Amino acid sequence: HPRARRATRTLWLLVLVSLPVCISVCRASSPQEDSAMENIVTEKKAEESHRQDSADLLIFILLLTLTILTIWLFKHRRFRFLHETGLAMIYGLIVGVILRYGIHVPRDVSNITLNCQVNASPATLLVNVSGKFYEYTLKGEINANEVNDVQDNEMLRKVTFDPEVFFNILLPPIIFHAGYSLKRRHFFRNMGSILAYAFLGTVISCFIIGLLMYGCVTLMKQVGQLGGDFFFTDCLFFGAIVSATDPVTVLAIFNELQVDVDLYALLFGESVLNDAVAVVLSSSIVAYQPEGDNSHTFEVMALLKSFGIFLGVFSGSFALGVATGIVTALISFFLRDFQLLETALFFLMSWSTFLLAEACGFTGVVAVLFCGITQAHYTYNNLSPESQDRTKQLFELLNFLAENFIFSYMGLTLFTFQNHVFNPMFIVGAFVALFIGRAANIYPLSFLLNLGRRNKIRSNFQHMMMFAGLRGAMTFALSIRDTATYARQMMFSTTLLVVFFTVWICGGGTTQMLSCQRIRVGVDSDQDNSVSSERRSTKQESAWLFRIWYNFDHNYLKPILTHSGPPLTATLPPCCGPLARFLTSPQAFENECQLKDDDSDLILRDGDISLTYGDITVSTDASGAHTSGGLAFAGASTSDDLDRELAYGDHELVMRGTRLVLPMDDSEPSFTEPHHLNIVDLSR
Amino acid sequence: HPRARRATRTLWLLVLVSLPVCISVCRASSPQEDSAMENIVTEKKAEESHRQDSADLLIFILLLTLTILTIWLFKHRRFRFLHETGLAMIYGLIVGVILRYGIHVPRDVSNITLNCQVNASPATLLVNVSGKFYEYTLKGEINANEVNDVQDNEMLRKVTFDPEVFFNILLPPIIFHAGYSLKRRHFFRNMGSILAYAFLGTVISCFIIGLLMYGCVTLMKQVGQLGGDFFFTDCLFFGAIVSATDPVTVLAIFNELQVDVDLYALLFGESVLNDAVAVVLSSSIVAYQPEGDNSHTFEVMALLKSFGIFLGVFSGSFALGVATGIVTALISFFLRDFQLLETALFFLMSWSTFLLAEACGFTGVVAVLFCGITQAHYTYNNLSPESQDRTKQLFELLNFLAENFIFSYMGLTLFTFQNHVFNPMFIVGAFVALFIGRAANIYPLSFLLNLGRRNKIRSNFQHMMMFAGLRGAMTFALSIRDTATYARQMMFSTTLLVVFFTVWICGGGTTQMLSCQRIRVGVDSDQDNSVSSERRSTKQESAWLFRIWYNFDHNYLKPILTHSGPPLTATLPPCCGPLARFLTSPQAFENECQLKDDDSDLILRDGDISLTYGDITVSTDASGAHTSGGLAFAGASTSDDLDRELAYGDHELVMRGTRLVLPMDDSEPSFTEPHHLNIVDLSR
Repeated sequence: HPRARRATRTLWLLVLVSLPVCISVCRASSPQEDSAMENIVTEKKAEESHRQDSADLLIFILLLTLTILTIWLFKHRRFRFLHETGLAMIYGLIVGVILRYGIHVPRDVSNITLNCQVNASPATLLVNVSGKFYEYTLKGEINANEVNDVQDNEMLRKVTFDPEVFFNILLPPIIFHAGYSLKRRHFFRNMGSILAYAFLGTVISCFIIGLLMYGCVTLMKQVGQLGGDFFFTDCLFFGAIVSATDPVTVLAIFNELQVDVDLYALLFGESVLNDAVAVVLSSSIVAYQPEGDNSHTFEVMALLKSFGIFLGVFSGSFALGVATGIVTALISFFLRDFQLLETALFFLMSWSTFLLAEACGFTGVVAVLFCGITQAHYTYNNLSPESQDRTKQLFELLNFLAENFIFSYMGLTLFTFQNHVFNPMFIVGAFVALFIGRAANIYPLSFLLNLGRRNKIRSNFQHMMMFAGLRGAMTFALSIRDTATYARQMMFSTTLLVVFFTVWICGGGTTQMLSCQRIRVGVDSDQDNSVSSERRSTKQESAWLFRIWYNFDHNYLKPILTHSGPPLTATLPPCCGPLARFLTSPQAFENECQLKDDDSDLILRDGDISLTYGDITVSTDASGAHTSGGLAFAGASTSDDLDRELAYGDHELVMRGTRLVLPMDDSEPSFTEPHHLNIVDLSR
Repeated sequence: HPRARRATRTLWLLVLVSLPVCISVCRASSPQEDSAMENIVTEKKAEESHRQDSADLLIFILLLTLTILTIWLFKHRRFRFLHETGLAMIYGLIVGVILRYGIHVPRDVSNITLNCQVNASPATLLVNVSGKFYEYTLKGEINANEVNDVQDNEMLRKVTFDPEVFFNILLPPIIFHAGYSLKRRHFFRNMGSILAYAFLGTVISCFIIGLLMYGCVTLMKQVGQLGGDFFFTDCLFFGAIVSATDPVTVLAIFNELQVDVDLYALLFGESVLNDAVAVVLSSSIVAYQPEGDNSHTFEVMALLKSFGIFLGVFSGSFALGVATGIVTALISFFLRDFQLLETALFFLMSWSTFLLAEACGFTGVVAVLFCGITQAHYTYNNLSPESQDRTKQLFELLNFLAENFIFSYMGLTLFTFQNHVFNPMFIVGAFVALFIGRAANIYPLSFLLNLGRRNKIRSNFQHMMMFAGLRGAMTFALSIRDTATYARQMMFSTTLLVVFFTVWICGGGTTQMLSCQRIRVGVDSDQDNSVSSERRSTKQESAWLFRIWYNFDHNYLKPILTHSGPPLTATLPPCCGPLARFLTSPQAFENECQLKDDDSDLILRDGDISLTYGDITVSTDASGAHTSGGLAFAGASTSDDLDRELAYGDHELVMRGTRLVLPMDDSEPSFTEPHHLNIVDLSR
């Protein structure tokens, strides 16, 4: 429709033009009114400040709107080069330039700040102005050389949010969504490798980058390029924050092109978990505080303490997240059929995980991640189909908004942040260190992992993972959190450039890289014909510990926490009969009966291309080969269920996501009775 | 299932018990750590404060969780006496008692506030502590006699949110949801009466209550019961804030029992609109500022100015809300098939309405209300079915959370608010004034309206409306916004009691009142057999202005802004041919063709019990009578479309809401061609 296209273009330009106009109007209106208000009471001043805040927030909302419209245009034209986050950054940059150079706000007389001399900095300050008391709250420390900036650039400072907003409002939904949408089948299949990359790899990358940057900083000091202190702990901190990868752009393209699922799982799993590792790692590096005043020497005790903090915070956050997830599963076990209540409860419990972790001194973001994974594993099965949709859509929306907000804010800060320290030598050093750090993570670990893996991580996958080491929201949030010292300011500026570069160049070059590395695209994750060989490799790969966990989860946790799984009466020893009957959901018994009555129905429901004729199953796999089996196969071990169930779970998620769901009752899992199911499975 | 019930009860008690434990743990942990931290830097102090905030918020989240669990229990047992909001208040009260009397926090040494003497109160304050600068932001003024409270009850003050949170975060989703879920058919049918109650009625009620309270206050002054100033403007302000009705409890029961739709529409419409009127009215009363120092005399100029402010703010907010709604409709006109983008855009545009209104100095809440109505009228038709679901569910969830949060906070503040002024005389006076004010709103206006209405508002409806004058979220938010003076504190305390009383007593007695007034329940809004008579009355009732508006909307606005409606080529004069073709959606033309091709399909889709055989329509109405008509009837005027289309729109909304939707494409409206549709309509 040429008309529609023309009209859209007009509309789009209209919004584009209206933004700077709106900004200048919002900006220009306040000082005029301010000057007329000089002698009006505090209340009015607070109102004015509120208006200003509304206008500032409005700028961001308009930025997001603009981003959405452009994304729509891109999607409409199937233009894959620039991802929405990259786009959001560009718009942020443009608005940043306008705010910085385009609008000149005359110095605001009524907002001049006062200096007053006291000998402490309490959280609350009462100020006595000619008999009236005003309450002030502490916002933070300001560098002595910034004090003039504060007075001059009130406007630019106002656009700058409190950095904690990122950690407490914007990151949690992003991280939760990552956990909740984790493709569990492929995640568990590659669990060992993912954990290795995320934990070992991130630590390796952190220390390699830290050491290289320390070398760089020492060189800079000798050349005389360094304008302030930069300690080894600062270098390590920098290493930790830039070790959190966020290949959102790459993954979006992978998803669209249906790139190999294992590569997707490796990248996504690594990026989800290494965010958690990087957060905890950076906070334990900050906690490294040797005794005495000269606080930057090496000390074993402090190092051990840092290590202890890392372990404590990580395991605490993990336990908390999982615990809340399980409590939610337990509650939602009973709370069916009231969709609004279910969704509200799900939302509140997930949020309370974050708050609880923060209140206990753990890391909320990490707790939320593991809460998300637990919710997807247990609670999701207890929700009614409508609530499953609702929760997924809700967190999808929150994730979308938060992510684009962070990226457009990133673009904005490049110009509006007041204390940038761009040091060419440090920037070049950082890029080199990042490259080497990523390489030292991927290649050696892949080599070691390939020794144990049947399904090797091929070299083109390794190159792709190397290439997909984008930095994003987490790195930004960690670096903006504290920009008080010279070292931190230099880190922040460099981090911004790193994010811009990786998102635009690496993100934009993903399709080229894929074709250059000859990585196959268009793989249907549910129909890939390498299933049987890969399943065997899963069994090989998954260690005994993992297999024990799986059996425990399948036989005991799932039946207790959800309506799926075999009834406990079948899995618990006979002596626990009454307890088992008490703990098993009535639906599980129903399921069992139903399975015995009409398994052909249930098997067909799975979306598998298989038909059951009485006791004999005939199924067709992707290659077209026919196989048949009888009940004689029924004795195979239940550990085979692992792959199948994960596959089933995933399948369900995918189908929901695209709304291709058939009118079936999802509370009844199709694959619970091992006897009948093994037939289908083995015959593939 | 007795097992499930027993387990639920255990679970529920567990949460109930865990709450106070959690509170005390959260509370107890902080002072211990504080004392150990006395000599640690500001950063740590900010962290501690952040932890405390997390714990405080956690209390509310747990409160909401508890409310949800109890609601579920109530719904499960079909226990209608106590609504969720009433329940939330009770839990809030309990936690308030625990916080106030149960937990004793030793005085926090490191948080002692300092007094410093300056001669102005800027928005930002820089404090110089031995060479380091700290930034403080203004929070507000504090009464001189509260200064000691601040230091003593840091804990209780922390649980008290910034009142602006209610206005800027919690109210907007509630009000937007009210506008978005307005049942348009019955709203438009009773438009005149609703506007009369909402505008005239609220103003009458405000002034009656104001005058009565002024009498009461004068009496109190003479008796010596008054402890501070209380001017006539304060009385009027009180009248304005308690005139905002919020019969959420009553409406929930109406919905469940399917009470007469007209009564529902009258009550709901009135409560939605009078919130807007009360907000603007109260702000214009505050703006009433006669010249000179003794600022509480009567002055015509100031009164006129206040009146001007009322008109300006109301119409400005109205225009802004409608304008943003129309812009969203225009954008979403093109933005189909990307559900996430649609939903995100919808959310952002609705939010930006609020921010834009606030930034321009209008009232965001009012703008958001009219934005919601416009979105429901135009944008909703342009959204894909999935996005229609998503947006409705999203705002339903936000509304639910915000509403319950406000009501549980209300319960909490009864004990945690520091400056309650409970004056028995004022409270009794307020209840009497409220009763008289409500009566002066409902009965005289109903009498006057009945003179013009065909479908009279019967006396039992009037009594029910009188009874359903509950006060809720808006009244609370308005009264907590400013509690600086003695008068405002007394108002706030009294308002709290009014809300408690009306929600518990009036809300709880709704079913009794319904049966006492013999109001019929179980009315199916879509099948009521009084349609034909009422439709005629609609035409009589709706003034010429409204009918002109309807025709304009149906013939021009709907075709331009949405994919529904007749093509503009049919409605615009022939001279505007090219323009009409340009502006009409291609789908509208398709619709037209389709209508000509297979109207039987489309007519059946409407869910009406009618069948079309060629040119002759046979339909069955609720009474079972058969009627038939030919194309001879096709010449009837298009103004008949009004009722039908509104009915159709509503029907669609209802069907969506309960997810009974058939797999049909909703972008194609069934009722657009007058010729064929009149047949069906007249034959009913």
